[in-house]
Amino acid sequence: MLNEHLWLEQTLKQLNLSNDMNQPNGFTRLGYSAEERQAKEAFKSIAEELDLITYEDAAGNYWSIWKIDDTAPTIAMGSHLDTVYNGGGYDGVVGVLTALATVRFLQEKEFKPKKNIAIIVFSCEESARFGISTIGSKSLSGLLNKKDIANITDAGGTSIAEAINQYGLNWDNIGESSIPSGSIEQFIEVHIEQGKKLLEDKKEIGVVHSIARPTRFLITCRGMTNHTGTTEMKDRYDALSAIAPLINEVESMANRLNERNSSPIVATVSTLSLEPNAMNMIPSTVTLGVDIRSTNGNLKDELIKQIKEFIKKIEHTRQVAIEVNKIADDLPLELDRGVQKNLLQACKEVGVSSLIMNSGAGHDVMNMSHICESGLLFIPCKDGISHHPQEYTAISNISKGVKVLMQYVKNQTEKEVSNE
Amino acid sequence: MLNEHLWLEQTLKQLNLSNDMNQPNGFTRLGYSAEERQAKEAFKSIAEELDLITYEDAAGNYWSIWKIDDTAPTIAMGSHLDTVYNGGGYDGVVGVLTALATVRFLQEKEFKPKKNIAIIVFSCEESARFGISTIGSKSLSGLLNKKDIANITDAGGTSIAEAINQYGLNWDNIGESSIPSGSIEQFIEVHIEQGKKLLEDKKEIGVVHSIARPTRFLITCRGMTNHTGTTEMKDRYDALSAIAPLINEVESMANRLNERNSSPIVATVSTLSLEPNAMNMIPSTVTLGVDIRSTNGNLKDELIKQIKEFIKKIEHTRQVAIEVNKIADDLPLELDRGVQKNLLQACKEVGVSSLIMNSGAGHDVMNMSHICESGLLFIPCKDGISHHPQEYTAISNISKGVKVLMQYVKNQTEKEVSNE
Repeated sequence: MLNEHLWLEQTLKQLNLSNDMNQPNGFTRLGYSAEERQAKEAFKSIAEELDLITYEDAAGNYWSIWKIDDTAPTIAMGSHLDTVYNGGGYDGVVGVLTALATVRFLQEKEFKPKKNIAIIVFSCEESARFGISTIGSKSLSGLLNKKDIANITDAGGTSIAEAINQYGLNWDNIGESSIPSGSIEQFIEVHIEQGKKLLEDKKEIGVVHSIARPTRFLITCRGMTNHTGTTEMKDRYDALSAIAPLINEVESMANRLNERNSSPIVATVSTLSLEPNAMNMIPSTVTLGVDIRSTNGNLKDELIKQIKEFIKKIEHTRQVAIEVNKIADDLPLELDRGVQKNLLQACKEVGVSSLIMNSGAGHDVMNMSHICESGLLFIPCKDGISHHPQEYTAISNISKGVKVLMQYVKNQTEKEVSNE
Repeated sequence: MLNEHLWLEQTLKQLNLSNDMNQPNGFTRLGYSAEERQAKEAFKSIAEELDLITYEDAAGNYWSIWKIDDTAPTIAMGSHLDTVYNGGGYDGVVGVLTALATVRFLQEKEFKPKKNIAIIVFSCEESARFGISTIGSKSLSGLLNKKDIANITDAGGTSIAEAINQYGLNWDNIGESSIPSGSIEQFIEVHIEQGKKLLEDKKEIGVVHSIARPTRFLITCRGMTNHTGTTEMKDRYDALSAIAPLINEVESMANRLNERNSSPIVATVSTLSLEPNAMNMIPSTVTLGVDIRSTNGNLKDELIKQIKEFIKKIEHTRQVAIEVNKIADDLPLELDRGVQKNLLQACKEVGVSSLIMNSGAGHDVMNMSHICESGLLFIPCKDGISHHPQEYTAISNISKGVKVLMQYVKNQTEKEVSNE
């Protein structure tokens, strides 16, 4: 056990390209950056030590295969190694680490699988760079809408297409990464929870039932600028003062819905841009980005209705024009029930307490679920903090995730047909 | 009169480098940009047609002189030709235009002044590019604190020092533009009001008594970021939700103070920056820029006190830390009373109705008042709109400004000593 912990700790650092997980500014490895590639190369070295064949697909996803037989089915595991700006070293990494550990420890036990076992490291899972998430797994599962996103740029003005070409891939060929539905049998992702439910319920592992996918709006309020020093208060059409009450109202609406309902909803005004944004000029235009998530679609509909009513009131009382644009609206995604059952069984077999729960965040597994039976395991993280330098989970928690994943993969691959 | 109006209209367009004052996107001539230089060169051509000697000083200010005698005193007029982003074609331009018209029409009347008459076009009056206003007139009047501002950058990352060097001047020598106190006798600026007081009081010209200079704060609220999808509402330290109520409170505080007091106060949350400003991340840090102006210092003090109390309440109810940094705090500036009296007298002599009033905005005359007796005339502008493509004032309004300014300059220069 001690040796396993040491290996997990050392490999965690190796995947994070650092000798110290305690980084005041966290980790920054944006999608399709040199840093993301370095982390994938670290993954490749580790996989090669395990005698896995590793290759990069046309979207930059790394595949490592414990090949048994070309004609046997394949069970895949994995996650991503890119991060947000100043993120943590566990989000994504833990899924790659537990997959590597599963292979390593099964090999140490001289386990002989009857199916091929694959580890996939997906490219650019985070939306931090381009505002588009899970580019690698979307491409792999045939869900990438190339035309719509080619010209979307990062903060430095580099488009997705340019970034991928600069990264050493070819944007024109990225579609070649797509694999046919059914070409792998199952996909399992392990991820930190990024919330506090496991801690509050004192459970060691979460088995995810549904993933709440965001509904997102851009709400643009247009007033009129003028000089801050010469325009009397009564003569203003200040777009920021007009829209500001919505910021707190979105929060209050979510709180009120949570009081009355058992399934949770979260709603956030997460982005704001303001024009002209100059000290001596009254704000003329403000755009708010609103992110709303719940596995209960009715709650989302109710909140959106309330937002629209509130906006009408603002338009009525202030002389401003408000435009609401929906930029994302995905239904909650339910993961495969058979996989859930078998994951719960694996928890039981290794003596790890489990909780059936929902995921508030999207993950690569969402896309994979379109081409194969898929499952998602959560391990708890400290105070629920993620996307932050203080993101942390203990090696002992990761180790429990490895135990469950190992048991599950063992159960699924010890026979040539699936263990239902 | 018709010919005068035609000349004013044509010269207005010439100074705006356009054949059409009606521009949907307004005019953009930032300080120390190629566009500002072009406008100054247009000024130079017009001044040379009037046989004025024109030169550029070390800060890029253009001086045009109707030279009578090296030993005679000099009366100066002027304003600026730079604009904010998408600004109007009257703010600043009207001061340069009325000065040129005064010289032209006095020459046409074969007036023989006993003093030298100067027109100054100041560089970079607007704070739009660097957040620093009146750079040219500050330098000319010896008030520029070079050390403090050298490294302040524009949105493109160019520092003030670099911008001035790129403009063809030498940052190291900019101080050579400074002229000794008393080296000119008087300075008069004509400007659009950028407010609605003249319209409301149905007066043709404003004679400014005091200039309200801004008190400015940067207020930074620090919470903690986390994932928007996985962090329950109750577990958040959302910096934007925490500080948002202050936006409306600043507006309400100013409104309440205006209800109870005769001297007006204006207060604006005019800038906002937010981190991480990503759709799936809870805001961790928000910085608000607050601009407060009144000629009544007690009202400003009261409003600042109320802001600080409100912030304490926010810190108490939300787990965020709020920092308040004062970045400007200038006392209201009273202009020369003798000049005011003589400007009112000139209005009377030419039959133009006048109003003694305060200015909510700063102007180049603020700096000039440190080195000579100074005055500021306002002409009304449509709906009080300024810093906006819809900024407008009729040629007939400008013409009244010219009449008053001509009469004043005539009164002041027809004898070798000032007409008190």
